[in-house]
Amino acid sequence: MKLLPNYALIVAGGSGTRMGTDLPKQFIELKGLPILMHTLNVFEKSNLFNEILLVMHPDYHDYWQDLCTKHHFCVGHTLVQGGETRYHSVKNGLNALKGKNGLVAIHDGVRPLVTQTLITKCIDAAQKHGNAIPALNPHESIRQGTFAHNHSLDRNSLWLVQTPQVFNLNRLTEYYQAKWTKTFTDDSSVAEMGGENIYIIEGEKENIKITTLTDLNIAETFLRLQNEC
Amino acid sequence: MKLLPNYALIVAGGSGTRMGTDLPKQFIELKGLPILMHTLNVFEKSNLFNEILLVMHPDYHDYWQDLCTKHHFCVGHTLVQGGETRYHSVKNGLNALKGKNGLVAIHDGVRPLVTQTLITKCIDAAQKHGNAIPALNPHESIRQGTFAHNHSLDRNSLWLVQTPQVFNLNRLTEYYQAKWTKTFTDDSSVAEMGGENIYIIEGEKENIKITTLTDLNIAETFLRLQNEC
Repeated sequence: MKLLPNYALIVAGGSGTRMGTDLPKQFIELKGLPILMHTLNVFEKSNLFNEILLVMHPDYHDYWQDLCTKHHFCVGHTLVQGGETRYHSVKNGLNALKGKNGLVAIHDGVRPLVTQTLITKCIDAAQKHGNAIPALNPHESIRQGTFAHNHSLDRNSLWLVQTPQVFNLNRLTEYYQAKWTKTFTDDSSVAEMGGENIYIIEGEKENIKITTLTDLNIAETFLRLQNEC
Repeated sequence: MKLLPNYALIVAGGSGTRMGTDLPKQFIELKGLPILMHTLNVFEKSNLFNEILLVMHPDYHDYWQDLCTKHHFCVGHTLVQGGETRYHSVKNGLNALKGKNGLVAIHDGVRPLVTQTLITKCIDAAQKHGNAIPALNPHESIRQGTFAHNHSLDRNSLWLVQTPQVFNLNRLTEYYQAKWTKTFTDDSSVAEMGGENIYIIEGEKENIKITTLTDLNIAETFLRLQNEC
């Protein structure tokens, strides 16, 4: 089977309002390097991608270029303008890839602990099943409803969804023509709305999304453990 | 309103098979003190409980007593024999409280980062609403189903359930007469089966259940952050 090219679309649109700091979270340093550079490094080292796109709010493009210079960051990537929501940022990224064929792996910029192993598994599964997303069963009991009215759910049938989420580039671009709704919390929800059957693979516990300073400390702990092994 | 007495039932029945060590996880040291002692300390310091019960597999009672001597541990508690599953352990604990009135707060022994604030909120809410459990909305996108067939759920209606879970002692004891099923993953699922409407209050992110060595490292990170504040 002739394999089509793969594209990585790293979404770094966040404004960082939850970090208790003015600096958007993707720029915060983790072990001396901005979070986003950790993320891009993993995708680059996987050797799986023909092109890496970075979608970022235009206000931060100059800041990012300065950071790249300061850190002598040499992972080649195309900078794309982010949009109003994650949905719009991904849509801009897909439009920037228009006319190309292959698979696109969409990944949250603030998940720097993603591994080459997980990225490879997602790409392999998407080649076989048409798409693939990593997810984990929750360890907690799960309930559904409001504070006052709720019921238990079977946690074994539930999945906490991560990224990278890998799709056929042309089909995903088509799904992203749909009008935005608040249920579009990730790419699989957009693809599902477009009629795609989503294929889940086992995610990794360490592949956390850094949205708070607490998350940043947990990420540092994970990095330390990885280096000790 | 005359307040009835409160009882704390700490469940420490785990065999620790997930820790990659022979020592059940509740005995592992966190900052020099077994996890379970951290947990009991918080309940003792809250000054909310007339009695603290500790439910533990009988094989470990002698080991626990030795640990208490070694650490000069002086939190008064009644040791109760644990059962085959968490359900059976809680049932044994409730039977040990038979004939008493009041509220019972059931808590996982391996959630040592629970705060006095959260315990107080749970007790207060249970006095008002008949019961209370702490839970958090997930930050991740959530899907329901199998690897190959699944669909997205609205994460805003979903809750990741924690402990302590507080119930009327007599009513919960009655619910625990039901025959065990695998859907009984916590006390709220047992109470719901008995016909109780469950009341949720906002949980705390740090109130994690330590089931792996990774969790232990995260807990150490949280403790360090608490001490820095």
